[in-house]
Amino acid sequence: MKLVKNAAGRLVPEKINGVKQVPFKGIGKYKPKGVKAKPSIRTCADYPENGNKIVKSLREALKKAGLKDGMTISTHHHLRNGDTLTNYLFDTIKSMGVKNIRWYPSASFPCHQHLIKYLDDGTIHHIEGSMNGPLGRYTSQGKMKGMGVLRSHGGRYQALQDGDVHVDIAVIAAPTADPFGNATGDRGPSACGLLGFALGDSEYADKVIAVTDNLVAFPCIPWQIQGNNVDYVVEIDSLGDPSKIVSGTTQVTKSPDRLLIAEYVAQFLEDSGIMKDGFSFQAGAGGTNLAFALYLKERMIKKGIKARFIRGGSTKYLVEMLEEGLTDYILDGQTFDLEGVRSMRENANHVNTSPFTSYNYHGKGNFASILDATVLGATEVDINFNANVVTHSDGYLLHGIGGWQNCLFGKCTILAIPSFRDRIPVIVDEVTTLVGPGDLIDVVITERGIAINPRRKDLLKAVKGSSLPIKPIKQIYDEVIELCGGVPAKPKVNKNKVVAAIKWVDGTVLDSVFQVEE
Amino acid sequence: MKLVKNAAGRLVPEKINGVKQVPFKGIGKYKPKGVKAKPSIRTCADYPENGNKIVKSLREALKKAGLKDGMTISTHHHLRNGDTLTNYLFDTIKSMGVKNIRWYPSASFPCHQHLIKYLDDGTIHHIEGSMNGPLGRYTSQGKMKGMGVLRSHGGRYQALQDGDVHVDIAVIAAPTADPFGNATGDRGPSACGLLGFALGDSEYADKVIAVTDNLVAFPCIPWQIQGNNVDYVVEIDSLGDPSKIVSGTTQVTKSPDRLLIAEYVAQFLEDSGIMKDGFSFQAGAGGTNLAFALYLKERMIKKGIKARFIRGGSTKYLVEMLEEGLTDYILDGQTFDLEGVRSMRENANHVNTSPFTSYNYHGKGNFASILDATVLGATEVDINFNANVVTHSDGYLLHGIGGWQNCLFGKCTILAIPSFRDRIPVIVDEVTTLVGPGDLIDVVITERGIAINPRRKDLLKAVKGSSLPIKPIKQIYDEVIELCGGVPAKPKVNKNKVVAAIKWVDGTVLDSVFQVEE
Repeated sequence: MKLVKNAAGRLVPEKINGVKQVPFKGIGKYKPKGVKAKPSIRTCADYPENGNKIVKSLREALKKAGLKDGMTISTHHHLRNGDTLTNYLFDTIKSMGVKNIRWYPSASFPCHQHLIKYLDDGTIHHIEGSMNGPLGRYTSQGKMKGMGVLRSHGGRYQALQDGDVHVDIAVIAAPTADPFGNATGDRGPSACGLLGFALGDSEYADKVIAVTDNLVAFPCIPWQIQGNNVDYVVEIDSLGDPSKIVSGTTQVTKSPDRLLIAEYVAQFLEDSGIMKDGFSFQAGAGGTNLAFALYLKERMIKKGIKARFIRGGSTKYLVEMLEEGLTDYILDGQTFDLEGVRSMRENANHVNTSPFTSYNYHGKGNFASILDATVLGATEVDINFNANVVTHSDGYLLHGIGGWQNCLFGKCTILAIPSFRDRIPVIVDEVTTLVGPGDLIDVVITERGIAINPRRKDLLKAVKGSSLPIKPIKQIYDEVIELCGGVPAKPKVNKNKVVAAIKWVDGTVLDSVFQVEE
Repeated sequence: MKLVKNAAGRLVPEKINGVKQVPFKGIGKYKPKGVKAKPSIRTCADYPENGNKIVKSLREALKKAGLKDGMTISTHHHLRNGDTLTNYLFDTIKSMGVKNIRWYPSASFPCHQHLIKYLDDGTIHHIEGSMNGPLGRYTSQGKMKGMGVLRSHGGRYQALQDGDVHVDIAVIAAPTADPFGNATGDRGPSACGLLGFALGDSEYADKVIAVTDNLVAFPCIPWQIQGNNVDYVVEIDSLGDPSKIVSGTTQVTKSPDRLLIAEYVAQFLEDSGIMKDGFSFQAGAGGTNLAFALYLKERMIKKGIKARFIRGGSTKYLVEMLEEGLTDYILDGQTFDLEGVRSMRENANHVNTSPFTSYNYHGKGNFASILDATVLGATEVDINFNANVVTHSDGYLLHGIGGWQNCLFGKCTILAIPSFRDRIPVIVDEVTTLVGPGDLIDVVITERGIAINPRRKDLLKAVKGSSLPIKPIKQIYDEVIELCGGVPAKPKVNKNKVVAAIKWVDGTVLDSVFQVEE
């Protein structure tokens, strides 16, 4: 395996699964040439005139779609850890004797541990997509036949759009669908909110199968996925476990340290002047993030400030802000709890978005860079503000990139993180895996201090005189290292064996994940 | 100009404006091969990070878009006869000294008579799009430099999608837009309802300019046109005359003959059993069509029947049906009056559609064929059920195709027409121009009788015993000819000079419009 050094100084594979790659060239430096992927032209003459595309089983649909060895099959992760469809899909593929599938999920979850046997027996050749938990560990152990590829949500859309990845068959879990293939995620027993992660698949895959456990008469409204892009519709008993698809409730952190971080983030937005009428921010569903939103809300009410829009991962906390008039809109990428799903279904100002609108770097702009502030997490940040979200300091690949890389393009990117976890420093000298270049990370907020990237002189100036504990990142690093009893050992990895590649938002290769030596 | 005889027996040009064509091969017979159009890949690095794409004038936007001689410029017709933007656009192009533009509107209206001077002076080379009124007459007179091409709404999308027509610059009239280019037609001083006719342009044109007279802060919700497809945003004082964009009110016909036709249509739907719970129909905004909807509504109420969906052209009459619970949904292609615009803005069950969802024949099915009944007009129908909507019996091209060809794929296609107009028969021996093959036209309903296509034995059986005046079409024809004082003279045309080609929904050439000899 030949490795080359890219513009970030990281060693990356020249080829991934036999295909030549472009190494990362720097932010905004790689200019794509060429044209978008070219789906085949279809004709209505080949589809049922009455619009009824129902076939009797998933097996039948896969057969009609021409499933064969070596194909690329895509799925989406809106059902999260409640997804039973994907496991059923690969059970079916296995039973059909088909081998060497490239699986292109938008993410995988612990529930997909079921698929390890299919990675072992060659049904699945390799995974391109976030590998959260067990599949990530399996990959880190060097057991996967091909090389994994991790992309951001935007990067996944970009790869479909640009033809970097051609999907033969997309399988879309549709909480509600009609016989024509129009589908929505905002209602039905397996409601997950929206289906944006499957949009690119529906547009660019050769064959698209919508699988539903809630078939309604045409038209399924809203049509988050358009039946005009769907080939077959399959009805099954259940897509998954609703309690694991969305939470009944989302929980704010109770940890005093995390609450402090959340309070700092809110204060930072106020003191820096970012929190002003018509501003926008992104907040996720982690415990710290939820707490931040609540603290910010208090400050907004106190100052009489209204946001123009909030980007979710929506939760009941964001929904309350919308309903209480603290924001005009929620622009939502995925709903995390039942209140988020309800709001999206009922409130026209709770808008569903997609990786195309929000994150695709190979578009005519996207929403991510318009945000005034984005608040994100990380597994590691180094003293040059480079950050990691996919591996732990022991080298194991345990998380996906999600929209994280895409959100780095916001006007003020804040990592809200504890300075250490389980006595392991989160602020490090050099990240195990580079997922976000330091040039795009503006502020690191920990329980023991706030570091502003020296490049952001404007922010340093804006918070001058604030009571916030602003320090150089090196100072926080030194404190943490002392507290944790010294610099931890580097992970033992095999530098000759790349198990997964980290793509940048433009499709270039940013870093490598190496096999962990156990 | 070499003409060939196509599968409908019509003489069509082998080439249009120098490009080789496929003659019509029969319904569903032409199977497209190949792939969709291939837009260039863009990168966010080339677009403003803050999402602000505003440029100071349309001229500036055209310059940035690289406007030059011989380009194809597209516009849409949602502003209908109130459109002042398109005239301003070509005034600007003229002032920039650019020549030989191919204009690709979704339709032109009498207000575009202003552009005749630009056809005369070579600013515009030719028009591909519906030419209603003066531009049609100009074309018929053989004055246009190139050959006109008429496509249905679905065919226009198909041509964009398949790459038959490559648009260099699309100019989208946006009644409301944000600086990123997200746009909607359902609000603003020039509100027109929806912007579906511009969807394909936004997706496939090289450069897209959104022009608005109502700029709002990001995000413009809903985003009927997605800013991710837009290059530049231009703010101007006014897009047009609101009173001509939508009517304050739409008018039901007062003509006793037309009312009789409307009543027959409603009775036909009931007697044939088409009007049943969960059925669907399409109704337009013509006076007869409005009357039909009212009569049908009475019958639905009387029988306690509810439709699943109605396809508009929406008007206050359809909106009332939605609000009174007589249909679950309106699937709307364009709004014709203020009530239609209001309903679309306020009611999630009044859904905006596009030529992609509804009409594109080169998709994985479309909505048109799912409809139980479509009620349409025509300028002529012949004794073989072939119909014409673009020329009059004097040979003049005065109307566009609109969604008419696409709607022929409904399960029961009804032409609701007077048997004669101004003493000129509408039922003829052979249509002047073939726009809809008789195989797709099921019922012709006139004030003096109803003709059912003999192919539809099922319909003939279904209405057996009905009190409706069902007759062979030849009998109606004979009556009308006698009434009008004999077979009218055929138009005097130059059979060597095709001034416009009629495309079928699959992009093949269905018929020719010849120069009228005046």
